[in-house]
Amino acid sequence: MFTLYYAPNTCALASHIALETAGARYQAVRVSFARQEQRSAEYLKINPKARVPALVTDRGILSETPAILQFIAQTHPQARLAPLDDPFEMARLNAFNSYLCATVHVAHAHRMRGYRWADDPAAHEAMKKKVPQSVGECFELIEREFFTGPWVLGAHYTVSDMYLFTLAQWLEADGVEVARFPNVAAHRERMRADPLVARVMAAEAAPPA
Amino acid sequence: MFTLYYAPNTCALASHIALETAGARYQAVRVSFARQEQRSAEYLKINPKARVPALVTDRGILSETPAILQFIAQTHPQARLAPLDDPFEMARLNAFNSYLCATVHVAHAHRMRGYRWADDPAAHEAMKKKVPQSVGECFELIEREFFTGPWVLGAHYTVSDMYLFTLAQWLEADGVEVARFPNVAAHRERMRADPLVARVMAAEAAPPA
Repeated sequence: MFTLYYAPNTCALASHIALETAGARYQAVRVSFARQEQRSAEYLKINPKARVPALVTDRGILSETPAILQFIAQTHPQARLAPLDDPFEMARLNAFNSYLCATVHVAHAHRMRGYRWADDPAAHEAMKKKVPQSVGECFELIEREFFTGPWVLGAHYTVSDMYLFTLAQWLEADGVEVARFPNVAAHRERMRADPLVARVMAAEAAPPA
Repeated sequence: MFTLYYAPNTCALASHIALETAGARYQAVRVSFARQEQRSAEYLKINPKARVPALVTDRGILSETPAILQFIAQTHPQARLAPLDDPFEMARLNAFNSYLCATVHVAHAHRMRGYRWADDPAAHEAMKKKVPQSVGECFELIEREFFTGPWVLGAHYTVSDMYLFTLAQWLEADGVEVARFPNVAAHRERMRADPLVARVMAAEAAPPA
């Protein structure tokens, strides 16, 4: 039994979809960013980084989306969420996920979280202004170089699809026209139409009382 | 036979140490950032992200340090560079490496590469100013929460040690006093004193003609 700590509209969605797809036994616990719960003493014991996702397991607590996604895939091999038996294909998956984590998500974060990297409000405005360009360039690279098709890595649906889908949610708010990226746009539509994905998104939007 | 593309004083050092430690057959090819070779048409065919490291294998080219490190560990199991048979321990390793890649390295990059996230020179200055604080906070968290000892993940030397060591090279230049972090400082000394690590660093500083 796992516990996933998540907040709506964050990258935790990828891990949430992965748990549901794997058929894992888990509960999802919402962390309210509006109430700054991620900075509460209680939550910092779960994740001292004050971020989501965090995954509580019977052996300890994990953070960082790429690590959690590989963990879910490895502990639920029957769900075939990753090319577990092929180190090169696993590396392709991890390279894609690392790029999302360290470049794409980071570019996006400069719109709302500039305070992480500068104290000057004028600098935050300068960062915000560049987000459409920097995020747009990331997705150009994904569209042109990294999206194999029909799924991210090729013939098989993997955790990388869940992760790309999650970050592609933010394109409009980041001022990036998704139509520029036909593969990414079609992939996002296909994922949204998946009843399992829709169920997870609905649960995040309106968690059970 | 692998080819590692690296530049001195970059995160490629971690992959370089991993290849050498694994006893892998490889050649290391230096990319000159001073001559902007990472943006040449030739190099963009190797890594369209215009970054190092890139690892050429007989099945294709890999990028992103966390992916390359896991790949080297998986393809050289006899070197025991990662807890390959334990998904939870692998997730701890990957969570640590993701944190280095997406948070620590990114905080550091705001000192020299602010142009990625803003066009305004005043914003670059504001970013530069915050680096000692943001990088310092990352290493406080590593010191206090994530460094198990004697090695990063505990009893066994892994690729996470190579990666932490690589990023810890930059502390002084980032304006962070390493003595604040006794575990990290001692770890860095121990790694530097390792003849294999010293050999790799010497090779990067003065590559064979």
